[in-house]
Amino acid sequence: MQMQIKDLGEFGLIKALLRDQPHFEGVIVPAGDDAAVVEITSGMRIVYTCDCMVEDVHFLATARGEDVGFKLLASNISDIAAMGGKPRFAVITLVAPGETLVEWLQDVYRGLGECCVLYGVALVGGDTSRGPKIMLNIALIGEIEPGKEMLRKNAQVGDLVCVTGPLGGSAAGLRVVTGKVPRGLPVAPYVLAKHYQPHPRVEEGQALTRLGCKCANDISDGLASEALEIAEASGVSIELVDEDIPICSKAEQIAKHSGEDPLGYALYGGEDYELVFCIAPSLLPHLIQVLPGASVVGTVKRGQGVSLLSASGARPINTAYNHFNKGDL
Amino acid sequence: MQMQIKDLGEFGLIKALLRDQPHFEGVIVPAGDDAAVVEITSGMRIVYTCDCMVEDVHFLATARGEDVGFKLLASNISDIAAMGGKPRFAVITLVAPGETLVEWLQDVYRGLGECCVLYGVALVGGDTSRGPKIMLNIALIGEIEPGKEMLRKNAQVGDLVCVTGPLGGSAAGLRVVTGKVPRGLPVAPYVLAKHYQPHPRVEEGQALTRLGCKCANDISDGLASEALEIAEASGVSIELVDEDIPICSKAEQIAKHSGEDPLGYALYGGEDYELVFCIAPSLLPHLIQVLPGASVVGTVKRGQGVSLLSASGARPINTAYNHFNKGDL
Repeated sequence: MQMQIKDLGEFGLIKALLRDQPHFEGVIVPAGDDAAVVEITSGMRIVYTCDCMVEDVHFLATARGEDVGFKLLASNISDIAAMGGKPRFAVITLVAPGETLVEWLQDVYRGLGECCVLYGVALVGGDTSRGPKIMLNIALIGEIEPGKEMLRKNAQVGDLVCVTGPLGGSAAGLRVVTGKVPRGLPVAPYVLAKHYQPHPRVEEGQALTRLGCKCANDISDGLASEALEIAEASGVSIELVDEDIPICSKAEQIAKHSGEDPLGYALYGGEDYELVFCIAPSLLPHLIQVLPGASVVGTVKRGQGVSLLSASGARPINTAYNHFNKGDL
Repeated sequence: MQMQIKDLGEFGLIKALLRDQPHFEGVIVPAGDDAAVVEITSGMRIVYTCDCMVEDVHFLATARGEDVGFKLLASNISDIAAMGGKPRFAVITLVAPGETLVEWLQDVYRGLGECCVLYGVALVGGDTSRGPKIMLNIALIGEIEPGKEMLRKNAQVGDLVCVTGPLGGSAAGLRVVTGKVPRGLPVAPYVLAKHYQPHPRVEEGQALTRLGCKCANDISDGLASEALEIAEASGVSIELVDEDIPICSKAEQIAKHSGEDPLGYALYGGEDYELVFCIAPSLLPHLIQVLPGASVVGTVKRGQGVSLLSASGARPINTAYNHFNKGDL
């Protein structure tokens, strides 16, 4: 019989989940006391965020624990990356029914640990409670040089709107997960990896802030929604050019099978965790050197909202993933 | 008809909950972007914790929102206080069903805001998701002078075990909440306040660390359980003296009505959020000056476990609140 967490008890569970972590610089008092004590690099400021995942909302109980853990931390890291920061220290809250399998949670912490090592994040504490469904929350501290933060409100009329890499891979992966295209397709493993183990753009975010970029957002909810956030915060409009939006080649193959437009994956799919950012045209020659994978996808204009320019002209697009809208509940 | 959060949508809800906050020093980029940017006092280290509250586990749906919000932040502040730190910046995660009343959540944020003002904590971000029950999580950053942290593992044989103030008030309040004693008793409002709006001992924690205290724990799960954590972490035993444990006078009155021993409230009740700490006997004269409300309740000895010394001799006591034990699920 597989072990449930109520068989272990709270302290046994914590022991089963927290393995020996590699040494991370700056951890003065690790997990295990009332609070952790950590230290960021002298002269830096703190970048601070939190992000949760809830069973049946963000993942199904049948999901691989490793994927849930990896993505939970990755989504937090992406928020730090979008500010231009470097992620450092995380605390995790775990709520779960007593019947939850210990092994599944160990998988979650294994995926989390992989992401920690990949991005240099130390897990330094947490809280645990029973509850009706599995809910996981991470709060993450990063560091950033004073004045270097990239904010949504800093887009300027005339700026170029760019993305760090091809989009739509995660949405294509979701088509495989939900059975809309056959799981046996040769490209399926690629888009599944994009969906389950997104790699946030920390290096790219830091390169952008060094370049002088002042405005960025991470693509968690689709390019259209993220561009709209920038437009609204900056009091400008953004015009995206359909043929300039880079689509993940594997996503294009998936879209052929599903009969969908892969541009829709990029605009509305979300969870690609690339960055969308705005820079003055004068910075473009430098951008090409520093981030050769980046693409210009549009321009910042006077006005409001986001529009999509295609051969048939410009049309407004408006969408946002909303956790409490009627269709969603 | 009262408004439910699904009528507002995620962004409308966030707008309804986040009011104009007073200005807090150190907030460079407030809530509203991918992450917040904050700054602690130069030369200080970061103290970092998180603590959650789950509907039907930590509170009932019928609880006053103000109390839930206040206590959620207070319990986090208490963890910072127990390290000797000063609380600074919080992020909050809210998970709730779409049918949750907006007004109730506004009350939660009102209680939270009161606690923020009282303790100088800035709320700088959060995440929101739907879910099957209400779950609230706060992560909290504080600051502490390097090397000043009070750790559970630092108790030394020969130390005096002390508490910052009288215990049992919160457990007595719970007796009123659960109807074990009449709600109309004159002392009821006092113990209800102790239960619903505990005041964590931040000033006391900082005074202790200045005094040279190296070992403390906050009393969230009862004195017996917190003393045991110190004993286990330090590899020592702790002997508590029953008649030296200060009992909240209002709790004694409640205990008379319920026919219980008020010492049980202090030892096993929890949620008093006083501090238990260990100091060398040579510090006692200073302690009395600095924290006149503190009491010596026992001593640190060789061995293991926690025992209670009474007129009939010493007996071992062992207990810990456990979120996943069988009786609890």
